[in-house]
Amino acid sequence: MASHESGNGDDRRPLRVGISGLGTVGAALIRILTEDGEAIARKLGRRVVVTAVSARSRSRDRGVDISGFTWFDDPVALAKSEDIDLYVELIGGEDGPALASVTAALERGTSVVTANKALLARHGTALAGLAEKCHVQLGFEAAVAGGIPVIKTLREGLGSAAITRVYGIMNGTCNYILTRMGNEGIGFEECLRDAQDLGYAESDPTFDIEGFDTAHKLAILASLCFETEIAADQVMVEGISRITQADIKVAADLGYKIKLLGMARKVEDGIEQRVHPTLVRKSSAIAGVDGVLNAVALETNHVQELLLAGPGAGGEATAASVLSDILDFARGGHVPPLGVPVAELDPCQRAPMRIHEGGYYIRLNAKDVPGALAAIATRMGEGNISLESVIQRPDLRASEPGVPEENSRTVVLITHETLESAVRDALERIARDGFIVGQPQLIRIEEF
Amino acid sequence: MASHESGNGDDRRPLRVGISGLGTVGAALIRILTEDGEAIARKLGRRVVVTAVSARSRSRDRGVDISGFTWFDDPVALAKSEDIDLYVELIGGEDGPALASVTAALERGTSVVTANKALLARHGTALAGLAEKCHVQLGFEAAVAGGIPVIKTLREGLGSAAITRVYGIMNGTCNYILTRMGNEGIGFEECLRDAQDLGYAESDPTFDIEGFDTAHKLAILASLCFETEIAADQVMVEGISRITQADIKVAADLGYKIKLLGMARKVEDGIEQRVHPTLVRKSSAIAGVDGVLNAVALETNHVQELLLAGPGAGGEATAASVLSDILDFARGGHVPPLGVPVAELDPCQRAPMRIHEGGYYIRLNAKDVPGALAAIATRMGEGNISLESVIQRPDLRASEPGVPEENSRTVVLITHETLESAVRDALERIARDGFIVGQPQLIRIEEF
Repeated sequence: MASHESGNGDDRRPLRVGISGLGTVGAALIRILTEDGEAIARKLGRRVVVTAVSARSRSRDRGVDISGFTWFDDPVALAKSEDIDLYVELIGGEDGPALASVTAALERGTSVVTANKALLARHGTALAGLAEKCHVQLGFEAAVAGGIPVIKTLREGLGSAAITRVYGIMNGTCNYILTRMGNEGIGFEECLRDAQDLGYAESDPTFDIEGFDTAHKLAILASLCFETEIAADQVMVEGISRITQADIKVAADLGYKIKLLGMARKVEDGIEQRVHPTLVRKSSAIAGVDGVLNAVALETNHVQELLLAGPGAGGEATAASVLSDILDFARGGHVPPLGVPVAELDPCQRAPMRIHEGGYYIRLNAKDVPGALAAIATRMGEGNISLESVIQRPDLRASEPGVPEENSRTVVLITHETLESAVRDALERIARDGFIVGQPQLIRIEEF
Repeated sequence: MASHESGNGDDRRPLRVGISGLGTVGAALIRILTEDGEAIARKLGRRVVVTAVSARSRSRDRGVDISGFTWFDDPVALAKSEDIDLYVELIGGEDGPALASVTAALERGTSVVTANKALLARHGTALAGLAEKCHVQLGFEAAVAGGIPVIKTLREGLGSAAITRVYGIMNGTCNYILTRMGNEGIGFEECLRDAQDLGYAESDPTFDIEGFDTAHKLAILASLCFETEIAADQVMVEGISRITQADIKVAADLGYKIKLLGMARKVEDGIEQRVHPTLVRKSSAIAGVDGVLNAVALETNHVQELLLAGPGAGGEATAASVLSDILDFARGGHVPPLGVPVAELDPCQRAPMRIHEGGYYIRLNAKDVPGALAAIATRMGEGNISLESVIQRPDLRASEPGVPEENSRTVVLITHETLESAVRDALERIARDGFIVGQPQLIRIEEF
């Protein structure tokens, strides 16, 4: 039941915020709330003040003074405190104290703002349902594409427009690596090391570079786009660690860039959610989103395409999104966390990936023997796969570990639109023929 | 005084909408409200129904059935009707029935949604103040950049981030013309005729091509960005009708596109608002926004730059934005129309344009006599204007009416960053020297 009573009590008294997790985002949030306190009060007609905090270490220097706030060792105790009007969860992690404290806050009747995409991806539907049951708000603008207000746009900005497809660049680490590989001709490993040195990538980068972070964000967006339950385990995920300079270079010669995209769309038999490296035309808007920037494109029936681009991470940008949720709560707006009431969500029916239609980039290491190319081409023809380009050049070496370069040559095939299952079948036959070494590289092409 | 009571009565009963003006947008809105009625009810928990309409002609075929709605000959009477909960003004025009009916609705205590940028540009501050005084809402998402939710983003999506600069492509007609001139090498007049044939431009295109439409939208954005009163009469405006193929071609050769931009920023001595053709680097995101698309970029202290791109016009896209305002009202959110209460707005102090700093593109018709180029270069040097490029090529003809081609040659100068006043002074001296014919073309360069 929607109520037009705001859940935050007297709207003149300061709004008391409790924050768990004082990393980069938490510290930036405290700084912004202090520095912009007057401006916020002018906008809202009331003040927003941090009253309590919790973190792993009380003494760590974060560049902000937390001595004036009530300290809690236990985030759950903070979440249950009667002295806060709003609980901000910036701990991270899909379970543990993040889940426990958010649940405790909602059950107590305290609204929650979180930047935790892993938590949302795993428990988002249940938490949204709990928030509705307890008549409180659950904001998570900062969980997807950091500083870009894409959640608000999906929940409130599009009228009744039905989303037909959502896609985007949602991981700054991957986009930084691919951008540098493209601009400077250097390899994946070197770019990754630089990203780690610059703080753009974790010391264990698996979560980012293998696409799981993008998958979490995509699953949240797909729920808002298609009015389905969040289903992160149904996202087909491929990362960027197998992308080589040869791929980047051939793609560039053909007028493409390689981007790690998350894409979801509603098809006849369900929701297709996928994350993988993608060839996009250089002239497309999404191809222009470089470096650590993020972008989300929404295709709707009423407004065609809307593209939102901006910073996807960073303490200040993420804190600004957390704050926009805080201000929305302070104003007393009422939107269900997932756009429609949880009871109205459909289950997320997974559409099988093998029926995806589109063009494909295929890089093979063909054995340097007579008839190899002919055999490959024959198999593609048998699969009714029509080829747009075939490229075999001496300067294209696979540079993949384990490939005996002297006995193979790199062949790149670009197909016209075809079924993924047909491509996979043809590649299996080609492998059985014995004319190729190593794993073929298969990258999907998308036309935007 | 902000109130958390929604102004729309019982929140279960259908929301009754009255619409004045049944052109493309009005007809699209009626169609969407009919077709998406169920989806809207599921989102909101209540229905949104059109109950009354007003337009110039009752009988005109609009592709939608209006026989079930109460008809009003007079939009003011509709606006004052007790049988509507929300008044939607789609009449257009800065005064007349649009102003009269919006004022009547607000005074009666009925919230208003409008797509009328001219009305807002001229009377926006007063109308926002009236809405606040009468404790009702005034929504105008559709008034700027059609289907792009930039008003919502500015009012609600950025936390407390302070905007440092806003710029964008806000007129699809101009962007269509400039895009075609660039892609196809055809002249301004021919592109304009095609735009008129396609319905992208009015039969009298002055308002669009001379930049006034962009100026209206910019003035509205600037108010929301800088918390100042709307001051459309303080926008410096130049249109695109003097842009020639020579300009487009030289710009392209130098790595630039020409776009009609609206730009506003806060500088030391006030707010600078300007609309003019601008050279932007081809590699910039804004340069990639082609055809009838619009885009708005927001530079803030917290999230660096945010770019929103999408359809700027069209019945469906604009109606979708009108509808998002309607749904916001139905949900009972409370945000002051201009982001902060009108009482908190500063007057808009105009920053003089002559102090603008940046690079300049200057195209001159130099007389074909010895010493002309030397004299021009000398005058630029005397003005301490440093030149990045000087281009004089036989294939560059000014193609401006009235210029005797056989006696002049086109010279293009690209300056480094300099003061506009210095450039204008130098050009005056050059004109007095008598070495040029016709008016120099001066286009500002912006680096994004």
